[in-house]
Amino acid sequence: MLSCPDRKGIVAEVSGLLARQGANVTAAAQFSDPALRHFFVRYEVETAAGEASAESLERGLAEGLSDLLSQPDAQLTVRRADHRPRVALLASKASHCLVEVLQRWRTGELPCDIVCVVANHPHIEEFAGWFKVPFHHVPFPPGDKAASFDRVEALLKEYAIDVTVLARFMQIIPDAFAEAHVGRMINIHHSFLPSFIGARPYEQAHARGVKLVGATCHYVTPELDEGPIIDQEVVRISHRDTPADLRRKGRICEREALARGLRLHLEDRVFVHGNRTVVFD
Amino acid sequence: MLSCPDRKGIVAEVSGLLARQGANVTAAAQFSDPALRHFFVRYEVETAAGEASAESLERGLAEGLSDLLSQPDAQLTVRRADHRPRVALLASKASHCLVEVLQRWRTGELPCDIVCVVANHPHIEEFAGWFKVPFHHVPFPPGDKAASFDRVEALLKEYAIDVTVLARFMQIIPDAFAEAHVGRMINIHHSFLPSFIGARPYEQAHARGVKLVGATCHYVTPELDEGPIIDQEVVRISHRDTPADLRRKGRICEREALARGLRLHLEDRVFVHGNRTVVFD
Amino acid sequence: MLSCPDRKGIVAEVSGLLARQGANVTAAAQFSDPALRHFFVRYEVETAAGEASAESLERGLAEGLSDLLSQPDAQLTVRRADHRPRVALLASKASHCLVEVLQRWRTGELPCDIVCVVANHPHIEEFAGWFKVPFHHVPFPPGDKAASFDRVEALLKEYAIDVTVLARFMQIIPDAFAEAHVGRMINIHHSFLPSFIGARPYEQAHARGVKLVGATCHYVTPELDEGPIIDQEVVRISHRDTPADLRRKGRICEREALARGLRLHLEDRVFVHGNRTVVFD
Amino acid sequence: MLSCPDRKGIVAEVSGLLARQGANVTAAAQFSDPALRHFFVRYEVETAAGEASAESLERGLAEGLSDLLSQPDAQLTVRRADHRPRVALLASKASHCLVEVLQRWRTGELPCDIVCVVANHPHIEEFAGWFKVPFHHVPFPPGDKAASFDRVEALLKEYAIDVTVLARFMQIIPDAFAEAHVGRMINIHHSFLPSFIGARPYEQAHARGVKLVGATCHYVTPELDEGPIIDQEVVRISHRDTPADLRRKGRICEREALARGLRLHLEDRVFVHGNRTVVFD
Repeated sequence: MLSCPDRKGIVAEVSGLLARQGANVTAAAQFSDPALRHFFVRYEVETAAGEASAESLERGLAEGLSDLLSQPDAQLTVRRADHRPRVALLASKASHCLVEVLQRWRTGELPCDIVCVVANHPHIEEFAGWFKVPFHHVPFPPGDKAASFDRVEALLKEYAIDVTVLARFMQIIPDAFAEAHVGRMINIHHSFLPSFIGARPYEQAHARGVKLVGATCHYVTPELDEGPIIDQEVVRISHRDTPADLRRKGRICEREALARGLRLHLEDRVFVHGNRTVVFD
Repeated sequence: MLSCPDRKGIVAEVSGLLARQGANVTAAAQFSDPALRHFFVRYEVETAAGEASAESLERGLAEGLSDLLSQPDAQLTVRRADHRPRVALLASKASHCLVEVLQRWRTGELPCDIVCVVANHPHIEEFAGWFKVPFHHVPFPPGDKAASFDRVEALLKEYAIDVTVLARFMQIIPDAFAEAHVGRMINIHHSFLPSFIGARPYEQAHARGVKLVGATCHYVTPELDEGPIIDQEVVRISHRDTPADLRRKGRICEREALARGLRLHLEDRVFVHGNRTVVFD
Repeated sequence: MLSCPDRKGIVAEVSGLLARQGANVTAAAQFSDPALRHFFVRYEVETAAGEASAESLERGLAEGLSDLLSQPDAQLTVRRADHRPRVALLASKASHCLVEVLQRWRTGELPCDIVCVVANHPHIEEFAGWFKVPFHHVPFPPGDKAASFDRVEALLKEYAIDVTVLARFMQIIPDAFAEAHVGRMINIHHSFLPSFIGARPYEQAHARGVKLVGATCHYVTPELDEGPIIDQEVVRISHRDTPADLRRKGRICEREALARGLRLHLEDRVFVHGNRTVVFD
Repeated sequence: MLSCPDRKGIVAEVSGLLARQGANVTAAAQFSDPALRHFFVRYEVETAAGEASAESLERGLAEGLSDLLSQPDAQLTVRRADHRPRVALLASKASHCLVEVLQRWRTGELPCDIVCVVANHPHIEEFAGWFKVPFHHVPFPPGDKAASFDRVEALLKEYAIDVTVLARFMQIIPDAFAEAHVGRMINIHHSFLPSFIGARPYEQAHARGVKLVGATCHYVTPELDEGPIIDQEVVRISHRDTPADLRRKGRICEREALARGLRLHLEDRVFVHGNRTVVFD
């Protein structure tokens, strides 16, 4: 994955560099943002046995593209296809998003290692147990949430977590915590943002009388509910649906948007640029 | 159509009254709002030739249900199945919503008579001409919109309009004008409300980086973009879509939501209650 | 629920009978099939404490409507709102549909008692165990499936099953077995029927190059893949999707269509008439 | 656009050739079919004023890739971004697909020149007239369709047509006619193929009791309804929908799938390989 200011000939340069190192491109996607004059490219390559490793490939590209990469906002990432990020799931009371991610992981749909589940409700332990994932109960008492966040942060360090998933975590993330995980912490919001920001979105949706509800999978940033959106899902509703029905129907959207967004992230298909994402699906 | 405070036995009462007047129910839909304790019912009935007319049926129901109908918020409407409301279309520069409604009307999908088109851009005359509908050009000069609205109001009176459709009219409706047409003026808003209220919603959507854009068909009320929603439609977008692409894809949503919402209204399938709608589709 | 040949005045009759027995209609849906001249109605009613029970209500309706109900194809069902059918889940190797139904049941979305899981693969026991539902392993050896079906039938009897769910059961149902459970056995087929009937639908879909795949929830009848359809779901795919990707994306459709269809059935919202369903959702 | 058997290093080769001719890649999409071992790539490039023309670029690529292009199934196409194919629309009685394509063309959504409309019903002339496109009435009498097809073929030659659109043309295309236009004739079929092949698909769909109907945009091949699919669209239906309702709702799908598929084709985003398409949208 390469993201950098756009200029002439980048494609030829990069693909030439790859070819010279014996890397054959098997899939490619690229996007030039005409407004931002920024360039995004994602290659899947294969190398013959014994040839370039991910590290040497990255080194080769970094040298060949040193002028590009020295610019602000430029970023190069090279990963092995069998790279498996270490993932932590944070939950609260509701289990539907948590179980969805765990079950898809178990059936092999999510290329990662889910190494721990953290929740402020102890009954979540049962679900973690189904999938034999270590569980940690961290209460979030109203008056002393800072200590709880410290405890979570310590757990994420201890488990050497690459990606943190807020599977309906329901706690407002402190700025410092959000900043420490920029681009690596994924949330599911229970509305089709930017509609119904804030608390109790299904009640808000019912009061407004909308005919669709939805969910949004996005990166966490210090600005609450304002992070870059990875994926969204909606479902049609009617006047017959009570707020409880909206919650039930919305759960389908939440599960689907989160699982899909997480998969895109784990497969290195998502670039963040400013407050928007480039998603090569 | 009957909308009234809920109480026991309404269904038996109403269907009994209909039966006693020789009206056979061929379709029925009903909804009791548990929160508002309000009751909504829509019957389609047929009567033998020579039997009860719509007027006598309405009189019979009004008498039989006089106690219910004397309550605030109670409303009874009886219409012949071949009732065709008189419709005016108001447009600005864009033609896609206007042509959509006219073309569906021509193919017999909209049970109404479209009797005039009003626009503040003269080139709209061509489209009205395709469908042989009288056209009126009413300019809306920046400084003197009140006079323009007076002119439109006069035209609506002159044509004895039942339903006014804002087919991307793009003018902010004065409160008095909105109030004069409550429940009878339908707008298409180019976003999935309540997202992106206000001007240039597709640019707002692009800036926010959402993955879906949409459109909302709603009744016009004095509160801008806040009226009761009849129908909504969304379409998936990607990072490749420029604001111009969003406008293009959004046009499909706008056309579809407006045509569908208008059809529901014309078939007397929409109840308004507070800021929400009950739609018996 | 009442399904009978259509005639004048049924609505008034039925709602009158209900009112006279002190049953207040809180929700109603009705449909007259114009082609088949058949009438379908579903009422939700509430009775004051100590008033009519479900049994006495059914008796009262059966007497009052005796002429209607004596006709072929007429059917009356009265059930308490807290009625919970006893459900058995039959599975094979794949767990996604099974776990979906069990998880929704656990979160209270499915008004039933899931009393046993039967599978021809022993590893399914683990999933049944998560939800503390008794599990039975019934192998289906290629040469002797009749004995296996006898074993399943015995289990369904033993557990006094009302509704049997084939959650990707993958065995061809013998005619006698299907007939014994008409209207009470629900299958999920992994294509949007009638497309790709038969084996390996995702491979068929890939070979044909369709741009959507889907799933179908239907009642089992002796005619394979031809039973009345309750619900269907589709998802967009692209040329990049391999047959394995179609299976993965299809799993979402299968889970959703099955869970939704089962819920509709359990809430007595589905009428079967010939090979079609009337669904009051 | 380049489609050829896959082998190592193609991306580097092609992008190198483009760079050496002063062509800067602004958008790229590529796909390697793992099963067919075939490679598809689409580049959008810009060249400085006075530099390589489309012709010289094509020549340069053809020389540089001569070994690849000499293989069967290999194909190279280079076109100017402002290339506008000449399009003919063939219609029968229904106008909805025809007017949809013409209206989107008029609003600038379709990069082509629509140069004639041909129909076997004379009333279609009115619609062609709206858009000032020449109209030709070619009757298709039951006994003598061969002569009618000869007349259509002559018109397509006379107008030097690049792309022929069957906008609900409703005539079975003779094999020779289909073969003469392979990859250049686009049809809209009124079902989500392969469901309901053959006549009266909406009646078939109603009889089968499906819960979704749809439409399919595909290339015409000698095998009726079997050509490579470009795009599909579906809409949810219910038991209340008569066959006439299915036709009405299906029209939305037909219009949308045809207009979208045609746009993809006109922008050179569709590769045909065997009976499947690769669509770079």
